This record gives sequence, structure tokens and C-alpha cells, in this order.
Amino acid sequence: MSKRIAIVGGGAGGLHLGLYLLARGVQVTIHTDRRPEDYRTQRLLNTVAHHSITIARETELGVNHWPTEQYGYYCHYHHFGGEQPIFFRGDFKSASRAVDYRVYLPRLMQDFAERGGHIEYAELKADDVARVASAADLVVVCTGKGPLGQMFEHDAAHSPFDRPQRMLCVGLYKGVAEEPTRSVTMSVSPGQGELIDIPTLTFGGMAHALLMENVPGGDMEVLAKMRYEDNPRAFLDTVLEKLEKHHPTVYRRVDRKSFDLANSPNDLLQGGVTPTVRHTHVTLGGGKLAIALGDVQAIVDPLCGQGANIASHAAFVLGEEIVRQSIYDERFCETVDAKRRDRILGAARWTNLFLQPPSPELMQLIGTMSQDRALCDEFTDNFNRPEAQWDRLASPQRILAWIGEHRAPAALAA
Amino acid sequence: MSKRIAIVGGGAGGLHLGLYLLARGVQVTIHTDRRPEDYRTQRLLNTVAHHSITIARETELGVNHWPTEQYGYYCHYHHFGGEQPIFFRGDFKSASRAVDYRVYLPRLMQDFAERGGHIEYAELKADDVARVASAADLVVVCTGKGPLGQMFEHDAAHSPFDRPQRMLCVGLYKGVAEEPTRSVTMSVSPGQGELIDIPTLTFGGMAHALLMENVPGGDMEVLAKMRYEDNPRAFLDTVLEKLEKHHPTVYRRVDRKSFDLANSPNDLLQGGVTPTVRHTHVTLGGGKLAIALGDVQAIVDPLCGQGANIASHAAFVLGEEIVRQSIYDERFCETVDAKRRDRILGAARWTNLFLQPPSPELMQLIGTMSQDRALCDEFTDNFNRPEAQWDRLASPQRILAWIGEHRAPAALAA
Repeated sequence: MSKRIAIVGGGAGGLHLGLYLLARGVQVTIHTDRRPEDYRTQRLLNTVAHHSITIARETELGVNHWPTEQYGYYCHYHHFGGEQPIFFRGDFKSASRAVDYRVYLPRLMQDFAERGGHIEYAELKADDVARVASAADLVVVCTGKGPLGQMFEHDAAHSPFDRPQRMLCVGLYKGVAEEPTRSVTMSVSPGQGELIDIPTLTFGGMAHALLMENVPGGDMEVLAKMRYEDNPRAFLDTVLEKLEKHHPTVYRRVDRKSFDLANSPNDLLQGGVTPTVRHTHVTLGGGKLAIALGDVQAIVDPLCGQGANIASHAAFVLGEEIVRQSIYDERFCETVDAKRRDRILGAARWTNLFLQPPSPELMQLIGTMSQDRALCDEFTDNFNRPEAQWDRLASPQRILAWIGEHRAPAALAA
Repeated sequence: MSKRIAIVGGGAGGLHLGLYLLARGVQVTIHTDRRPEDYRTQRLLNTVAHHSITIARETELGVNHWPTEQYGYYCHYHHFGGEQPIFFRGDFKSASRAVDYRVYLPRLMQDFAERGGHIEYAELKADDVARVASAADLVVVCTGKGPLGQMFEHDAAHSPFDRPQRMLCVGLYKGVAEEPTRSVTMSVSPGQGELIDIPTLTFGGMAHALLMENVPGGDMEVLAKMRYEDNPRAFLDTVLEKLEKHHPTVYRRVDRKSFDLANSPNDLLQGGVTPTVRHTHVTLGGGKLAIALGDVQAIVDPLCGQGANIASHAAFVLGEEIVRQSIYDERFCETVDAKRRDRILGAARWTNLFLQPPSPELMQLIGTMSQDRALCDEFTDNFNRPEAQWDRLASPQRILAWIGEHRAPAALAA
């Protein structure tokens, strides 16, 4: 008898898992309340960069419809403001790429359906849980919405915050030029927050996601609350004023005349997330378990662009274990967690570290990276492996040792 | 500058780690209050079987002085008493071997010293901790004795018991014949406890360790309290009486006339251990950490013969990471634990399961093993990999699935 897996939530994690399992003969049902055609008129869902490690998974799944040759970006530019601003670059070994999830998700749903995957379109209610569980050997929960997402308890040891650390204002804009090399810019305005500028494919072609990570109480917080619809010109003027003041290396690429949301007022998302790690399984009765995936396991602030990448990683780990094992009990969940946990915690811890004012050692790392391209390249490529990034950043000692490794060859050469 | 590691405790875990590190150019100091010459007159320390996975590590370390061709055993005989007693056998893929630690440890100390390892002979006091820490990059604690062993807190989630589950009476005896194949016998007297008979090399040659695991309040508990020295004949007669009644497949190999402790009254050890898992690192001040190894990380009841094997495994994992990494902080301890934890918890959980009255599914497994040599061989060889054993035993579902796998080929052949 074929294994039967229920996936609750139709985001990237659920779809990657569903496609992975379908390809291996597992019966998969995805439960979601959003039809492919709903996404066209929906508000922007997030901003998501897929790094090369994730794109390789898409290729393996046969859903890499957006080749990096056409849509990818190749490096990070870093700007740190202050009395002596610095601007420097780090390269990926292989390109990253961002696609508006209102384009991405319906395309993968189509792939999933065409390959025999079953999608049930309904908003699950508490009454539905027993039915979903009884029809499956394992329930995978990857949306916090609905009765199942609420069942997973916070893991206090890895959830240091009780509120959002940034007030977010993220929009897809036209009228922003590229750097000579297509790139993401990570601009830091000390004490005020960050701006991540991500070249992103949306409905009408390439645009720029401007992810403004505004410190609560700071000069830019207003952007997380101001309504575009009330007065588009006033909103855009405020964005431009704040960019000019706090994020000048992005501002200098803006054409004030054509600068606007790329497609419609739906291209703007405002709010904030509380970084949260959750315990990863719950019992549903009848010997069935539900296991968490993606945002249900860990919500990270979008600052370091890790959310989708760790969800996709976790989906593959879970998929491999679903195929390899046949009993989906607590031991199963434990073995899954042992294989995915370090990367997920690495992303959560690294992002949480970068949400705090930098330590002197971290400042020293940034200063050294601005002078040492090889170091910054390593930092940049580690966006693919957040656990490796955390190996470098987990303690002041580690940061200094990393800097020291890059200093040593120069000293020898002198 | 060479790495400097302090190892507190001179048991198998500490010595395997010390030898591993010495071979890789690390400066190692072992702190112990026992000199090699002290062991000759010491009371029996434990009974320890080294399975082939551990013997392979000894070979790698160049300390396999006791070849299995001469000292090894090849299988387990299982006896389950009751109304319909069963007796059956399972084979290892490669031989196991037991050497009295009063022979084993001083020989490895000699190897360690001859290869340039430093041993400091002193009982550490609280005042010594700062000195030991300041002279090392990392302190490894593998004895519960002394001020350092006390610093590691219980991990309540994996320490289900607050008292010993068996009253132990373990001795090295002469006058016990072998089965036709040299073997360990695991004899179960339902409700009363277990006897593990282990052919063991001691000072005068091969003898038999009889490890009596007596249920508190049961008919055999008296053996954990009766003093050999008070009246050797009365003690031996009581042992013989209890063996005849509860462990007949061992008793039938006993020659009553020559049956006695193998060397001296020191060959007897009585007491009990509370199975305990501890948190694995503590901070010592000055940025130094102490990490737990062996019994300090997990004390398991000797029932399943896992203690030395998991300590040696953990020593190698720790040694590999000490060599691979250079900063011994909390992240270091976390990466070490991630690599050794599953095997150690596997041993603890499996042993704890077997200390409890068996579930119906476990009884069914035992019954099937008695009829199915391939299944029992797999169970037996899993003594090398307790995490694999736990994959089979962790839930009733898993036990039934394991039985089912072994039934399926027969059904096909029928």
C-alpha cells in the first residue's frame, strides 16, 4: 500500500515536499484555501530570495522555470552608513534568484497537479483535523493559519523575542536601476534599520523588492504604518526622503519620476514578525502525528533571506525520511529534526544576532570584510548554509578567529 | 601553538580520547587518582563487554592487545524462564570481547604514557579546578567523582528514574564451563531479574563475569547485600541456589566444587546505579568550558553492556571535533553532542526499556526471535549500534514492523 501524506499549507515548503514525494510514488494531498488563480489579485506575500542551494533543489524537482542566467543575481553590495560610510561587495559562487511568490507558487501548484498531486481547496476547521489525519499516515503542517498551526508550542530556548524586532515595509517597485552587476544591496542605517533591495521577477517582469527593516521608534518606522492608498504621492515621497537620508546607495539608483509600486497597490506589505521557533510535532489521536515544516517550525525575520531556503531544505530532509522510513511516530520526528535542526537554528540565530546592535567583534568583521573580498565572498556564499555562517558567528572568539584566518596569508606575504 | 586538552578521569572514555588526541599532536593531560599499579589490588570496577565496533577503535588506536581470536566471544544465548522456558541464540557479525578493567586500564595508561601523554596523579579538589582549566583549552570530564563531575546537571527529559532499577551483584567466577561456542548468556527470570554471563579475561586468565541484575524486593535481591567475606561458603551456596532456581541454563554449566570467585574477594562488586543522562557542558570561568564524556554524560544500567561502547564512541566523536575545530565554546559542545547524542540516547532508552516489564509487542519479538535466527542475529549485532536498536524498539508499531519484515520472506516462500 502506498504511503499517504497530508500537507497542510501550499507554500514553498509544502510544495517542494509534495513534488519530492510525488516523484517517489507517495500519495500526497495538499490542503490550502488558495487556488492558483487567486494569487493574481492577492497582496504581496513576502520577499524571498532563493539561493543556489535551493535552486538546485528546484532543478532536481523539475520546477526551475526561472533560469538564473535570465533572472539571477550574483552578489551582495553592503552599505554601512555613519560618519565614515563603507560600501563593499561579496560574491556568491552561484547565482541566487527572487521570484514574486504570487508568480512562483501557482506555477508549482500547476506542476504538482499535472503530476498527479491532489489539492484540496478549503480552509481547514478544527472539525476537519480528525478527517485529515485519518486519511493520511502523517500530517505535515506548514501554515500557521488554522487549527493545526496553532497546536505547535513555542520552543522558549530558541525564541528570545516576544515582539517583532523590525517594523517592515516591503514593496515591489519600478524606477530602480541595477548596479552594474545584478545584485542585492544590504544597506544598514545604524540605529534605524536596514534596507534590502532585491531584484525580483513579478507579473510585469523584473522589479525591485525594497524590504525596509525599520527599528521600532526610529525615523523610518512611519513607513510600516503609512497607507499607500490614502495618498500614493505622499507615501512615495516619504519613501524617497527616507531612502535619501538612510540608504543613499539605493537612493542613487532611483529615478524619482518613474518610482512607484511595480504593478498595483497590492505590491505593498507592511507589518512585522516575531522570530519564533516551535516544537516540531504534536499527536493527533489515533496514533497519528503532525510534524511542523517551514514557518510553523521557525519564523525568521526576513533580514537575512533565509525563510524559504530553510523551509525547502527541511522539506527535502522530511521527504527523504518519509521515503526511507515507514513508521511515522515520535522517533521518526526526532530523526527528521536531527537532520534539519542545525541549519534551521543556524538561520534563526544568525538572523536574530543581526537584529541586535552589533558587538565590537562583529563591527570588526564588517570592517575587515570591506577590505577583504575573499572574506566577504565567504560570508556571502554562507547564505546557502546558515549553519556554516553560525559556526563563524556564534561567539566573539569565532568571529575574531575568522578574521584572523583571512589576515594570516597577508601577514605571510608581507 | 599546540592544542591543550585536560581529561579528568582515567577510564576507557578518557583513555581512548587521550590516545586519539596524542596520535594527532594534541597535548593531553589525564588527571586521575589511580596509578597503574593500584589496579592490581582494587575491587572489581564493573563488567564491560567491548563490541566489535569498539574493538575496531582499539585497533585504530594501536591498543588492541587482546585479540578476539583468543579472548573473544561470538554470540548471545538467550534464556527466558517461566512456564514454557525458551533458549535461543543470536550471532554477532564480528566477535565481542571482555577484559577486566583492572587489567585493561593500566595497560592503556602505559600506552598513553609511552607515547608522550602526561598523567597527573592526584584527587582533584574544588581548589584545583581553576588551575586545571587555565592550563588547558578544554576540560573533558569523565568521572563523576570530585568537584567537576558534580557540576553537570541532570537532563530530566532523559532520566526517568530516581533510583536503581536493579540491585547488582557482579563477580568474576571460576568453575563455570563454556557453551560449545564461547558466548554471553542473557538469562531472564520473569519478575526477578536477569543474569548476564560474560567470559572475561582477568588476572589469572579467562573467568566468567556473572552479572546478576536483581529486581528490588525479589527473590535474588539478597545477593546484592550478602557479604562474601563474612562466610564465603554461605555466599557461594546462596548464589548456586538462586542460579539453579532462576537461571538454569547458566547453572547447568557450573561445577559446584570449583565454583568460587576467580582471584580473591576483590572480584565481587555489589550495589546499583540510577540510570541518568546529564547536560553536557558547564562554564568554568575565564572563557573555558568543561564537556562531559562517558558516565558523566550518561550512566546506563549494565544490563545491555553499552556503557563502555558509548563512552568510546563519544570519545572518538569528541576527539574528531577537537582536532577539526579550534574554538571550544558552547557551539563546539553543541556540534559534538549532535554527533554523539543519538547513539548515547539509543543505549540509554533501550536499556531503560529492558529494565521495565516487557510490553506484549516486546514479548512477541522475543518469541519470534526464538524461532527466527536471522532476526535474533540482527538484534544481537545491534549491540554495536544502539541507535539502530532503538529505531527497532522505540514504539510498539516499530517492534511489530520489525517482526513483520522477518515474517514476509517466509510467507513468500510458502
